[in-house]
Amino acid sequence: MNDLKQKYTVGVDLGGTNTVYALVDETGVIIDKASFPTDTPSADIWADKLASGISEMIARNKLEMQIAGIGIGAPSANPSSGCIEGATNLKWAPPVPLVAMMKQRLKLPVSINNDANAAALGERAYGVAKGLDNFIVITLGTGVGGGVVCNGHLLCGSRGFATELGHITFPFAKGRMCGCGREGCLETIASARGIVTTARRMLAESDTPSSLRQTDTRLLTAKMIAEAAEAGDAIAQAVFNFTGSCLGKAAAQFAAFSDPDAIILFGGVAKAGRLLTEPMAKAFEADVLHLYRGRVKILTSSLCDAEAALIGAASLPLLPSQPK
Amino acid sequence: MNDLKQKYTVGVDLGGTNTVYALVDETGVIIDKASFPTDTPSADIWADKLASGISEMIARNKLEMQIAGIGIGAPSANPSSGCIEGATNLKWAPPVPLVAMMKQRLKLPVSINNDANAAALGERAYGVAKGLDNFIVITLGTGVGGGVVCNGHLLCGSRGFATELGHITFPFAKGRMCGCGREGCLETIASARGIVTTARRMLAESDTPSSLRQTDTRLLTAKMIAEAAEAGDAIAQAVFNFTGSCLGKAAAQFAAFSDPDAIILFGGVAKAGRLLTEPMAKAFEADVLHLYRGRVKILTSSLCDAEAALIGAASLPLLPSQPK
Repeated sequence: MNDLKQKYTVGVDLGGTNTVYALVDETGVIIDKASFPTDTPSADIWADKLASGISEMIARNKLEMQIAGIGIGAPSANPSSGCIEGATNLKWAPPVPLVAMMKQRLKLPVSINNDANAAALGERAYGVAKGLDNFIVITLGTGVGGGVVCNGHLLCGSRGFATELGHITFPFAKGRMCGCGREGCLETIASARGIVTTARRMLAESDTPSSLRQTDTRLLTAKMIAEAAEAGDAIAQAVFNFTGSCLGKAAAQFAAFSDPDAIILFGGVAKAGRLLTEPMAKAFEADVLHLYRGRVKILTSSLCDAEAALIGAASLPLLPSQPK
Repeated sequence: MNDLKQKYTVGVDLGGTNTVYALVDETGVIIDKASFPTDTPSADIWADKLASGISEMIARNKLEMQIAGIGIGAPSANPSSGCIEGATNLKWAPPVPLVAMMKQRLKLPVSINNDANAAALGERAYGVAKGLDNFIVITLGTGVGGGVVCNGHLLCGSRGFATELGHITFPFAKGRMCGCGREGCLETIASARGIVTTARRMLAESDTPSSLRQTDTRLLTAKMIAEAAEAGDAIAQAVFNFTGSCLGKAAAQFAAFSDPDAIILFGGVAKAGRLLTEPMAKAFEADVLHLYRGRVKILTSSLCDAEAALIGAASLPLLPSQPK
């Protein structure tokens, strides 16, 4: 019987926009997946919704006896306390004791980690970071986060708040106010919202023809801008050139912190691929200290969008050496 | 006999100005110490000088049979290759295969690591970082370096070049050219030379009376400026306020990378103590992301000047888990 037991975990990716959860097998393959919008009136309603969704999913796959635990990737999660503390893209008042809330509802072991750390673990287990002991993942989505593996260890720090790369400030973001209350965070440039802001400004400041002008600028999305850039739109391409170049300058600083072999873009915005990585690699090489020049690969996640975050989160209950 | 054997190591602190070496016992106590100026015509002459000095020191203490190895703390040292690669404050053409050069001359095990990493290990073994698993050491001297311990591990990175904190660039250093060829590195502000540059500018740009005006500005040293600040000199105090404030802004960025419990100033310039840490702590709290506010101690090394680097270097041959 034992070989049938606890071979599966549930991964939860709590994003600023959507909450995705999935049943994942021991080889990292997603068996079943569902999602709902994160923006619920309270954390309790969110937890109820997630718990009933997970219970249903486990039941419909007849895996009640074979679940090792739930792993949650969430913004500003403290793996030690099991709480979300001070997330800037969620409306719930911190601290939110997610681990306790889910344990109470599901009677299963629950682990939590930063969504970006979960993404890094997912990339290492199944993605482009396979076999790498030194790499940086920059997650680009509603917010911007970082997950860093250095000498084989995930950097968690004293309270699990290491590598908040989205909240490192840069001169290229001068004048842009961040949800955290500070000015100039990388997130104000490289998040989906940051890209839209850049597009709005570029549209306002030039008369260059652009397909983006057909849309009310209040309705623009990063995805629309990426599609326009792919189609050859000059303004949209300039937006991604600027964003990629900023990411390259930021990455040059990050490299001096952890001496990585690769820097990997991850998340919805990273789907823009070469639109971001080409200007990024160029700016990185121009800016970086000679010690790192020509030695760091700039990559995008090879895993499909939310999947790495989910798989990384799902791997949390199985990792004895990571804080839970 | 065995308990008499290999209880001692030799620590070498290869600084931009002086090379200090010492016999250190297993409890981290320095038994004998000597030094010579680093600025020799070639790396070979330096290695000859060091090897004969170490041999003499071992002989005069009658410890020929009891030396476990030599640990060298050196700028831009690659612990994997045993070479100094691309150090910006040494005149020798990199790479300098120091480990091979010393092994050949001394027939003893030789390990090398970044001088700042050695400092961090020294602080953790015997200094203010005793018992801490998450801290950052910023070394302030001829250059500026960093040693970071995160979740109990020294961050080395892919090739031992992690945490080059002196070469992270900041807007407050705009216009200052660094030895590495880039503009705006922390080193251009917080090194001994950076402090002298700041003093020269402040003296040039104001008419405020200052005891520093009695000295030809070309002969000013960071130590003289620190002494003048201690004695109440307004310009000298403004120099340290500016330097400390810049260090605080830098530390606020570093905190977002490794979530430390303490940030420790180390090295010659750090002897200025409160002159640096007070403006530094103030700027840190004003700038840092809320997650870290009020939670990071700003400290200066409790070990005497070069001692922690020496003791840290001396501990390198004893650390099986660190790259050698």
